[in-house]
Amino acid sequence: MEWLETSTENCPVQLTLGVVGEKWSLLILRDACNGVRRFDDFRRHIGLSEAVLSDRLRKLTAAGILRATPYRQPGSRSRNEYRVTRKGWDLWPVLVALKQWGETHLGDESASVLDLRHERCGAPVSLVAQCGAGHIGLTPGEVVATPGPAARLRS
Amino acid sequence: MEWLETSTENCPVQLTLGVVGEKWSLLILRDACNGVRRFDDFRRHIGLSEAVLSDRLRKLTAAGILRATPYRQPGSRSRNEYRVTRKGWDLWPVLVALKQWGETHLGDESASVLDLRHERCGAPVSLVAQCGAGHIGLTPGEVVATPGPAARLRS
Repeated sequence: MEWLETSTENCPVQLTLGVVGEKWSLLILRDACNGVRRFDDFRRHIGLSEAVLSDRLRKLTAAGILRATPYRQPGSRSRNEYRVTRKGWDLWPVLVALKQWGETHLGDESASVLDLRHERCGAPVSLVAQCGAGHIGLTPGEVVATPGPAARLRS
Repeated sequence: MEWLETSTENCPVQLTLGVVGEKWSLLILRDACNGVRRFDDFRRHIGLSEAVLSDRLRKLTAAGILRATPYRQPGSRSRNEYRVTRKGWDLWPVLVALKQWGETHLGDESASVLDLRHERCGAPVSLVAQCGAGHIGLTPGEVVATPGPAARLRS
């Protein structure tokens, strides 16, 4: 089967974008990964409307990417804090990959806005492609992509 | 400086999403990375309108992610083929990261739709976080994120 013959319906890239591909969703997750938890903090920092933020937080929570937990400040009504779940942290490589591309291709302006370092040794962190036999730093040209067993013919 | 105090204006994640974050753009790139080159092939395989496809191809080409080169079939007018540039291939980790999350979290349906293998040894390929000192397979919990030298205070 060739790629063009496959159905895109169960493509994991497409399905994942169906969950987090809406504008703002990944930026909310970016902030949540950096410790932002409260509605007003997300809203002011990212700069989006209350209605859109509410909608995206609801969707990210429904998808199990964020978890809402109530908190109450003295004299205020109960509100939710949002924390990244394990499932949400599994999207961290998507954010790092977007970050790396921006740093490489969108100029000095955006390089080193956020510094990622290995906690234990202090060395800078990056994403690399690795194969199961331990070869590291593979380029796309060294990787062969073929339809796998779950590929279906498109109708 | 704390993350919440930083301006998001030069955040590389945000700037990159400004280039490829529109719906369909990453799916067009996915197809292009899998060898799709022609307008009608993109349109039929991805299932989007001519107007949207034209617009997204124009933007991806303007951003230097795809390169248009003319071709002509006998009896037809000249048309463009679209190929992934080096800059475009640098977005490949974004696609692989989205793929990995979908395969892990969106069920058996989408696992192994596309099989990535190291050409030389045949072992399956995945993305991992690595530090400059050679520690491999870092989890987000082992990585410290702090505003870097390019971080600016938000106004």
